[in-house]
Amino acid sequence: MLEDRIKCKELREKIITADEAAMFFKTGMNVGTSGFTPAGYPKAVPLALAKRRKRGDKIEMTLMTGASVGDELDGTLSRAGIIKRRYPYQTNSFCRNNINSSQIEYCDMHLGSFPQWIKYDFMGHIDIALVEAIAIREDGGIIPSTSVGNSNIYIEKAEKVVIELNISQPLELEGIHDIYSPDNPPFRKEIPIYKSGDRIGTTYIPCNPNKIVGIVITDIKDANNELAPIDNVSTRMAENLIDFLDNEVKCKRLPENLLPLQSGVGSVANAVLAGLVSSKYENLTVYSEVLQDAVLDLIDCGKVDMASATSLTLSKERIEDFYNNIKKYKEKIILRPQEISNNSEIIRRLGVIGINTAIEVDLYGNVNSSNVLGSRIINGIGGSGDFARNSYLSIFVTQTTAKNGDISCIVPMVSHCDHTEHDVQVIVTEQGVADLRGLSPKERAKTIIENCTYGEYKEMLKDYYNRSLSECKYKHIPHLIGESLSWHKRFSETGTMKIIF
Amino acid sequence: MLEDRIKCKELREKIITADEAAMFFKTGMNVGTSGFTPAGYPKAVPLALAKRRKRGDKIEMTLMTGASVGDELDGTLSRAGIIKRRYPYQTNSFCRNNINSSQIEYCDMHLGSFPQWIKYDFMGHIDIALVEAIAIREDGGIIPSTSVGNSNIYIEKAEKVVIELNISQPLELEGIHDIYSPDNPPFRKEIPIYKSGDRIGTTYIPCNPNKIVGIVITDIKDANNELAPIDNVSTRMAENLIDFLDNEVKCKRLPENLLPLQSGVGSVANAVLAGLVSSKYENLTVYSEVLQDAVLDLIDCGKVDMASATSLTLSKERIEDFYNNIKKYKEKIILRPQEISNNSEIIRRLGVIGINTAIEVDLYGNVNSSNVLGSRIINGIGGSGDFARNSYLSIFVTQTTAKNGDISCIVPMVSHCDHTEHDVQVIVTEQGVADLRGLSPKERAKTIIENCTYGEYKEMLKDYYNRSLSECKYKHIPHLIGESLSWHKRFSETGTMKIIF
Repeated sequence: MLEDRIKCKELREKIITADEAAMFFKTGMNVGTSGFTPAGYPKAVPLALAKRRKRGDKIEMTLMTGASVGDELDGTLSRAGIIKRRYPYQTNSFCRNNINSSQIEYCDMHLGSFPQWIKYDFMGHIDIALVEAIAIREDGGIIPSTSVGNSNIYIEKAEKVVIELNISQPLELEGIHDIYSPDNPPFRKEIPIYKSGDRIGTTYIPCNPNKIVGIVITDIKDANNELAPIDNVSTRMAENLIDFLDNEVKCKRLPENLLPLQSGVGSVANAVLAGLVSSKYENLTVYSEVLQDAVLDLIDCGKVDMASATSLTLSKERIEDFYNNIKKYKEKIILRPQEISNNSEIIRRLGVIGINTAIEVDLYGNVNSSNVLGSRIINGIGGSGDFARNSYLSIFVTQTTAKNGDISCIVPMVSHCDHTEHDVQVIVTEQGVADLRGLSPKERAKTIIENCTYGEYKEMLKDYYNRSLSECKYKHIPHLIGESLSWHKRFSETGTMKIIF
Repeated sequence: MLEDRIKCKELREKIITADEAAMFFKTGMNVGTSGFTPAGYPKAVPLALAKRRKRGDKIEMTLMTGASVGDELDGTLSRAGIIKRRYPYQTNSFCRNNINSSQIEYCDMHLGSFPQWIKYDFMGHIDIALVEAIAIREDGGIIPSTSVGNSNIYIEKAEKVVIELNISQPLELEGIHDIYSPDNPPFRKEIPIYKSGDRIGTTYIPCNPNKIVGIVITDIKDANNELAPIDNVSTRMAENLIDFLDNEVKCKRLPENLLPLQSGVGSVANAVLAGLVSSKYENLTVYSEVLQDAVLDLIDCGKVDMASATSLTLSKERIEDFYNNIKKYKEKIILRPQEISNNSEIIRRLGVIGINTAIEVDLYGNVNSSNVLGSRIINGIGGSGDFARNSYLSIFVTQTTAKNGDISCIVPMVSHCDHTEHDVQVIVTEQGVADLRGLSPKERAKTIIENCTYGEYKEMLKDYYNRSLSECKYKHIPHLIGESLSWHKRFSETGTMKIIF
């Protein structure tokens, strides 16, 4: 048994239980795991680690992943108090709470830069790589599952490698991956990708079989990507975005089939891409970090020719459908290491249209994607900076208000800045589009207020801007410095950014 | 006469006076000029334009350059009220004042991205390219002078080209330039630079001679780069930086001859590189946007093998010396378009060590490089973002205090953010070094306070941090949102950030 999953005979002798594998982990270790969104992350060993902790073993570690992961990893280990330090991204509520309560030291990093920090030895020694795989080759080569993330790098750098061989992941995934790792400077060459669909590497992660210390057989399925139903607000955002793209094509600033699309993770990002299903566009390509349901829809209706990412993160219905038609989809999907999917060189060369979501945007085009009220981490910057800074068009979408109107997502000054005024070209809300390209800060403010806001907050923003313009001595970026964050202060004190009389 | 400077006979008939050339400019035009720092910018025609304005002609225009330029261009045209809109960078006090008083709309942009925005037609039609040159070839090819900047792009995109042929610039500069322009997506290929010294293009800017409508002969010299003498504070910053680099080499995170160096513009940036003259380092290379005096010193003492940039901006003494030994220096210096010198692909591939100066840094590692008190533009982001985001090591230097101690350059929260917490790895002040790599926000705050500050502000920062940590409900990035910008407010009201009892 398992001959088709573990081709190397000697390695079959390294099959162990999750509980046994958990014993490799010692307190103080740096552990690098697979996983990018709840896809392709290890599940059985983290659960066993939490059991060990419950039995009283002290285990505290630094957890490095690709990006966010499922609850078996971030949730279980956070609840058990095992994660003491976390890189480079997370979205789990327990992990987030531990970060916001100072129990976890979290460093929120660009998903496209973090891999090279590991390769540069900036992140210290990697003790164990814990990686989900669908199979292991005769030569030790590891075939990942539904994501690649940083697995290739952890396997290369770690002292020991532990594999979770997940038999719930079909063997037919083999061939979807394209693994490539650039050399470090001063020896680095170009990354030879010129189109979304270019394959430049191997379909497996090379690994010295002697480094593999244990193989755990598991069948725990990926958590699914739960998408909110596409609502009216999302639909209007998508329509506004497509209107904008239509006009760019009309003005010949974009080709008829656009340029490779990137869209962030989550319901809004999915809804925006889903809007393209009923558009006139054909022969689209995707060069993104994740592929959500909408990309499969676009492939199904013949609008997307090729989609590249580092992770396949589908809803429950969609993943079944994907598995049933894997041969068809494999011709149009490539999964790459995040060092490649999020690489500035490729994003700039291909001219990616970057579409990311914002928590809040300010009058002058600065974007907060990570921290509410400047202090409270939600998820992190993720790949949004990799794409926004290097894209052909850098677009941010946000609804105009949140929390039933108590929060205005357009504020006088962002309380935390992830994307500066220099990196944000277009703001899309359900109200409209602000095209900020080439505008001075004051022109940006007027355009954002006019096109992207409405109602009470629109009047409040106009008032702030007008008073800033008349009272502020220096008018490049008019601000009332004592009042610029007052909306956030009011919200934290009263629960609403509105002024209550 | 001028046969050696204008090889194309037909073009010699297009020699006109500056006053005649000034008549090509009409109100409302978009004008793209040469110039990057006070080097290689047009001088005679702007002076003639101001004369025209004085005679009562209404001329208002959008001025796009490489970066900052000398007073003949930004100063004269600002004083004459001719500049209505300005891209992408400036450092002139008259221009700055007009921006801060709302007379000029200024959009402050990444110097490495702006060129492609022009090529993508995001900046509109370019009516006239006004470019300083040392000579014109038989085929119309234009040989730039002491900078390249965006000249190649303006010449390509403009309807008309006006040349200032500057005979004060020696013909021996020919051969120092390397002109290359990547195609736009989706046709873009890699930029084949693998070492600072790789030459990939032509020594001239190709130009259809029919586009050249006038050639103005001038001998007005470049304004010189006035550097402040290297003071005690700069020397200590340089020493601290070199100590940091020494340790990186010791830990094998950097090779013995480091990696290509980039250093921003100005006295501090120059002083920091000058510190390397007395260091142990050999066979250094430079991949930067400007070359200031210190790079020539490093070439002279045999420590720098090759230096690449887009501009040569030297002091009065140094430029004479450069001209007298031009043959020697030409072997070790390449001037490229800023689309290449500041290109994310190359900066990341080469692994550049980016060293830039900050106006203010906050506790959590965010950097302000452009706006005082959030509103008052000084210069702009320049190329600092191109390098910081893509470098191997992203280092920011700042003195601990400014204005005789009335300003703390380390503040609770930056009043404007140009470089986010995700892009800043190392802070160097005259007090010490804060290595922020892999640290959580709270750890960064402690490290910055401990290593980079002193005296009264150190105590004030500790107090702010400690109260934030205990009072702020969410502790990922502890802030007192109502107090985070209070230091700036106090300065604007009392003239000092210190608390006066």
